[in-house]
Amino acid sequence: MIRGHGDDRYQFDLPVKADFSSNVWYAGMRKELKAYLAEQIGEVDHYPDPGAAGLQQKLERSLDLPADAVLVTNGGTEAIYLVAQAFAGATVTIVEPTFAEYEDACKLYKHQIQYLSWEKLNSETAFSTDMVFICNPNNPTGQAIDEHSLERLINHNKHTVFIVDEAYIQFTHHTTSLIPLLKRLPNVLVLRSLTKSCCIPGLRLGYIAGRKQLLERVRAFRMPWSVNTLALAAGDYILAHPTAFEVKRETLLEETYQLWEGIRKMPEFKVMPTHTHYFLFETLTGTAEALKMWLLEQHGLLIRDASNFYGLGPGHCRVACQKPEHNKLLIAALRKWTLS
Amino acid sequence: MIRGHGDDRYQFDLPVKADFSSNVWYAGMRKELKAYLAEQIGEVDHYPDPGAAGLQQKLERSLDLPADAVLVTNGGTEAIYLVAQAFAGATVTIVEPTFAEYEDACKLYKHQIQYLSWEKLNSETAFSTDMVFICNPNNPTGQAIDEHSLERLINHNKHTVFIVDEAYIQFTHHTTSLIPLLKRLPNVLVLRSLTKSCCIPGLRLGYIAGRKQLLERVRAFRMPWSVNTLALAAGDYILAHPTAFEVKRETLLEETYQLWEGIRKMPEFKVMPTHTHYFLFETLTGTAEALKMWLLEQHGLLIRDASNFYGLGPGHCRVACQKPEHNKLLIAALRKWTLS
Repeated sequence: MIRGHGDDRYQFDLPVKADFSSNVWYAGMRKELKAYLAEQIGEVDHYPDPGAAGLQQKLERSLDLPADAVLVTNGGTEAIYLVAQAFAGATVTIVEPTFAEYEDACKLYKHQIQYLSWEKLNSETAFSTDMVFICNPNNPTGQAIDEHSLERLINHNKHTVFIVDEAYIQFTHHTTSLIPLLKRLPNVLVLRSLTKSCCIPGLRLGYIAGRKQLLERVRAFRMPWSVNTLALAAGDYILAHPTAFEVKRETLLEETYQLWEGIRKMPEFKVMPTHTHYFLFETLTGTAEALKMWLLEQHGLLIRDASNFYGLGPGHCRVACQKPEHNKLLIAALRKWTLS
Repeated sequence: MIRGHGDDRYQFDLPVKADFSSNVWYAGMRKELKAYLAEQIGEVDHYPDPGAAGLQQKLERSLDLPADAVLVTNGGTEAIYLVAQAFAGATVTIVEPTFAEYEDACKLYKHQIQYLSWEKLNSETAFSTDMVFICNPNNPTGQAIDEHSLERLINHNKHTVFIVDEAYIQFTHHTTSLIPLLKRLPNVLVLRSLTKSCCIPGLRLGYIAGRKQLLERVRAFRMPWSVNTLALAAGDYILAHPTAFEVKRETLLEETYQLWEGIRKMPEFKVMPTHTHYFLFETLTGTAEALKMWLLEQHGLLIRDASNFYGLGPGHCRVACQKPEHNKLLIAALRKWTLS
């Protein structure tokens, strides 16, 4: 975060027609959930369940996990910071380029950090560190490691704890969640977010799933009442209506491909392969910073300047698929950029 | 928290007619705020401002404080845990009996804890510890130390950092906030809550005010996005309508006195003096636990079993003033308890 982030429209006094800078699904919050939350507003005159025990139990049942295999968190961010804190001072590998919070949290808690390039990650990789952070699919690259390779990797490194961030797992068909495999994977903590696919990042709701014994270490650092009443209500609602919140993956990935292909056709941009609904591209005729401001000021389109990710360069941008008509606006605007 | 807490109706499958267990003002959330929050629900499809910088600046202006003299937190609880973390391993005095979170947070961060009885606190007290936690007015006793005595006490201990929790400051006329005095008090961090007087504890919104240099130490541990979009919206609304959220203190304290006096008249209860809208009493004919369950099951009235506060005994209960008709129900029910 301290090195910049997406969804930063609050920083600009400019109208935004379409926001490509956040990886939240463009579908928007479902109107039924919105109506439900409006009904629940009166409930904020009470304190929330301090340990989110009710939602924890519902998640455990829904995920077919035993008791105390889930820890509900104030967004994925609290999950990352709690894990870093629970393993303070450990040696850690961060598979990069990736979401900066792993590094920020590990620095705060005095980890000794090593970096491994995503390209060098395979099921035979041997780790000498106490922990490994892997975002799968990865942010910002959109790359995913399939669950079989990942399981082999984890089994190959039984003395290393794997923190697998599945914040975007619903947005790919290249991999599936490790949660059903937790029974045979004692050295894994899976981080999940309920907000990206349900389009409610403002409410802050995530969780960690893992073996009770490993999770206890993390739970010891969690303060009470960290998850607010409306986030808990949203969690209850989502679990009660699972099919309503399924990501329309085929359509979304097809639309992403159209956007990706539209940018790829312009030789002034280098587009990176992706397995999800967001991807990186590089402007070869300027900086990401300049392109971002030009798109915002001239076209009301907000993208993520990705130049501050570890391992990326000054031209790197990240975009997440938006509605087809908005994607067309971005392609048209980028064409103008190449002519300017 | 790990030793029990108020507002725990979610634990019981019983109807609650009136809730005396939480210190939140009985007035309830203002309907204008409720309507405003309902309008804002659509905004949770964005991430919140990661450092709550916008609300921070508004608070600084409203409190006439310089830049970076405020840190917005996920409720008062995050404030307590961040302070304890920033001073990890310090020696600390906790003025007791008091809110258990100070102790819980200090234990988590390996403080060496000493306890001082509230009765022994005066402006001549000398502290040998790095830090002191004082809740003013105090929870659960309702006692307050006047701001002049507190200022002398702080000046008498210039090498000690005072953490003064003013979560209930709007509910007393026995003391006023230290915030206007921060210019001459470099060794103070003031903890505030926006949820008790505005009746929105479920949203989780608080802040710390103090000298920039001292607060920086705490800010270093704050994770991004810890305060949700609706809490930030509520904060904006409250600051824009300050008079609408003023506690009707005279009326509330008069009603509290009626409740206090009603219980005091029964010799089976010992009532403690208070400066606020909540107070302690002791049942001399049974335990707080038994009384709490009897009131809930027989009368639908929820009180706080206060026996688990450090320094209190098995008969201690805490109640906060509710509407006059509900206070009468409690007095009538307690009369039946004395006859049972």
